Amino acid sequence: MPTMTGGAPLDVPRGLAGVVVTDTALGDVRGREGFYHYRQYSAIELARTRSFEDVWYLMSEGTLPDAEARTEFAARTAALRRLPAGVRDALPAIARAGSGPLAGLRTALSLLGASAGFRPVYDIDAGDRRADALAACAAVPTVLTALHRLGRGLEPVEPRDDLPHAANYLYMLTGSVPDPARARAVEQYLISTVDHGFNASTFTARVVASTGADVAACLVAAVGALSGPLHGGAPSRALDTLDAIGTPDRIDGWIRERVLAGERIMGFGHPVYRTEDPRSRMLRGIAQGFGGPLVDFAVEVERQVEAILAELKPGRELHTNVEFYAGVVMELCGLPREMFTPTFCAARAVGWSANILEQAEDSKIIRPAARYVGTPPPQPVPMP
Amino acid sequence: MPTMTGGAPLDVPRGLAGVVVTDTALGDVRGREGFYHYRQYSAIELARTRSFEDVWYLMSEGTLPDAEARTEFAARTAALRRLPAGVRDALPAIARAGSGPLAGLRTALSLLGASAGFRPVYDIDAGDRRADALAACAAVPTVLTALHRLGRGLEPVEPRDDLPHAANYLYMLTGSVPDPARARAVEQYLISTVDHGFNASTFTARVVASTGADVAACLVAAVGALSGPLHGGAPSRALDTLDAIGTPDRIDGWIRERVLAGERIMGFGHPVYRTEDPRSRMLRGIAQGFGGPLVDFAVEVERQVEAILAELKPGRELHTNVEFYAGVVMELCGLPREMFTPTFCAARAVGWSANILEQAEDSKIIRPAARYVGTPPPQPVPMP
Repeated sequence: MPTMTGGAPLDVPRGLAGVVVTDTALGDVRGREGFYHYRQYSAIELARTRSFEDVWYLMSEGTLPDAEARTEFAARTAALRRLPAGVRDALPAIARAGSGPLAGLRTALSLLGASAGFRPVYDIDAGDRRADALAACAAVPTVLTALHRLGRGLEPVEPRDDLPHAANYLYMLTGSVPDPARARAVEQYLISTVDHGFNASTFTARVVASTGADVAACLVAAVGALSGPLHGGAPSRALDTLDAIGTPDRIDGWIRERVLAGERIMGFGHPVYRTEDPRSRMLRGIAQGFGGPLVDFAVEVERQVEAILAELKPGRELHTNVEFYAGVVMELCGLPREMFTPTFCAARAVGWSANILEQAEDSKIIRPAARYVGTPPPQPVPMP
Repeated sequence: MPTMTGGAPLDVPRGLAGVVVTDTALGDVRGREGFYHYRQYSAIELARTRSFEDVWYLMSEGTLPDAEARTEFAARTAALRRLPAGVRDALPAIARAGSGPLAGLRTALSLLGASAGFRPVYDIDAGDRRADALAACAAVPTVLTALHRLGRGLEPVEPRDDLPHAANYLYMLTGSVPDPARARAVEQYLISTVDHGFNASTFTARVVASTGADVAACLVAAVGALSGPLHGGAPSRALDTLDAIGTPDRIDGWIRERVLAGERIMGFGHPVYRTEDPRSRMLRGIAQGFGGPLVDFAVEVERQVEAILAELKPGRELHTNVEFYAGVVMELCGLPREMFTPTFCAARAVGWSANILEQAEDSKIIRPAARYVGTPPPQPVPMP
């Protein structure tokens, strides 16, 4: 059967599972080992030992910063937190449209790219591409927190230059400087979600970049992909599950009923990890550092769900995924549930940007094929 | 080497060329035969014999309309041309951001989806998805023409319900009802560019749809992909080439110099067609129906370029592509060059929408893999 390319069509697994689209030096996920890394560094080690700005620098520049580079990068990105007037002035109208901060971010990032005159990635050099990506990523927390506050009838809080990235994010959200433990917990969550292999939004960003489109076009597309419930939509749902169960005595009955009915339990299972999700393990530790009834309840739910799944679905490795304890940690840090996926997005924008910059070093458009299976058309009249 | 999936990585041609991502009943391109079709109908025959609304209906509903369906569909889509107040009111700010109508459309479609409360495609039924797609596609010409006029200090022209789609598009652009020949020429151009195989923007729309994101998220991503110079950015450049050559006596020298320097001649060559591009043939016919010095010059340039390419690059099939005569036809119809790619986009939105609706019938996220080729990370400590 003829295809777009004129060559032989190549059949591959559904959803392109396992199909290698590109080489990357940005990182990888080793599902069987329960390990993932950014460049040559364990992502979890980075989250344990580094600042968000250090990891952002690593993804953008390729190395961890020395002291001088750290100071310069922090100052440069802090200055980019303030939105261009045209974008800031449009936020009330974007918030009024409703549909929440993630849909609003999609609009605002698109407007930001146009306002700032972002140019096609193949028409500019790597330095200018990096500058566009930094401007976009630095603006994301400002946009998200402003949209959240406007949606509640509150004035946006202007960013502060003197706070680190994560602390400033919480500050813009609440209007108060956060306590150091909560700022650090959110920072570790953000670091741990900067990148995670070749997921659908990362791939989307790279497909758009492969056409030569500007950085904003790529990021806006990725935000759209992340907004899909099959991709980024679950951290708050996992917490909703805890709410629905309610009390420890109800765990066993509630979970058994749903597993026997074939329902998925939100916050459990991952397409890649065949072990515990390393992010889940780290976030559980952070949650346990705070302690309290929600954490105790979450740990007990995890224990019982894993036992029930091992009993009812033996041989399947089903553990908590990143969403389960991410929801708990964000709740403990005072983030409203509406902001769970947007907060994830604020971190992931840095990973998308690194992927866009890497894709822009290539010059080959990503353009696969499809197989026509509809009613055959009449035979075309041959060209004379 | 481990991959995202835990299975064996599958290497495929660069850029996924020839890799079959999905089955489709929407159409196909037969590069060797110079033929493409929408569902079971020759696209060129549809452009010759049908209205834009008929083809839009075909892509959306799956069949060509009967008389009753045609009337109902025309009334329904005409009513959707008027923008929600929140979107209309935001257009001046979007136009002020600059970067042109395509970047502005990206922002406005995102805002439209939020304003209209578009929901994730997997959370709604096929009818509601179709309704969202129709609302978006009907709004595109209104948004594009308003942004173009606002960019020139002119008031937008409100859509008219009593004009067909293509005529209303030209009316909103200029403020005058177009003469029938020009309206029909633009309508035929729009029909011929509704869809064209599995190009990068269509693929982008389907990847985003595969996450379950809403129709606006998918379309906004596709607009971004189309804005890439490797994809949708060329119809005006082909016309710029005619301007640069200037006069018939300069054709031979101008073209030879560039071909010998290894430069690409804009408007010639296509990754799929190994024959004449059937769209180019149709559009040349339309242009010749208008006649005049620009058309005569374009035909002469085509003749000489093909002769020079046959002489200097024997064995290569290099013909005019859709951009060459599309630019000529749009110029003859009074479309400003800034609107060439946006006009293409207005047609293609219908094709993207059909692809989004088809993808939403699947439920498998599109998530390929990448191969890590950077510095190896330290061996992870095994999970206890």
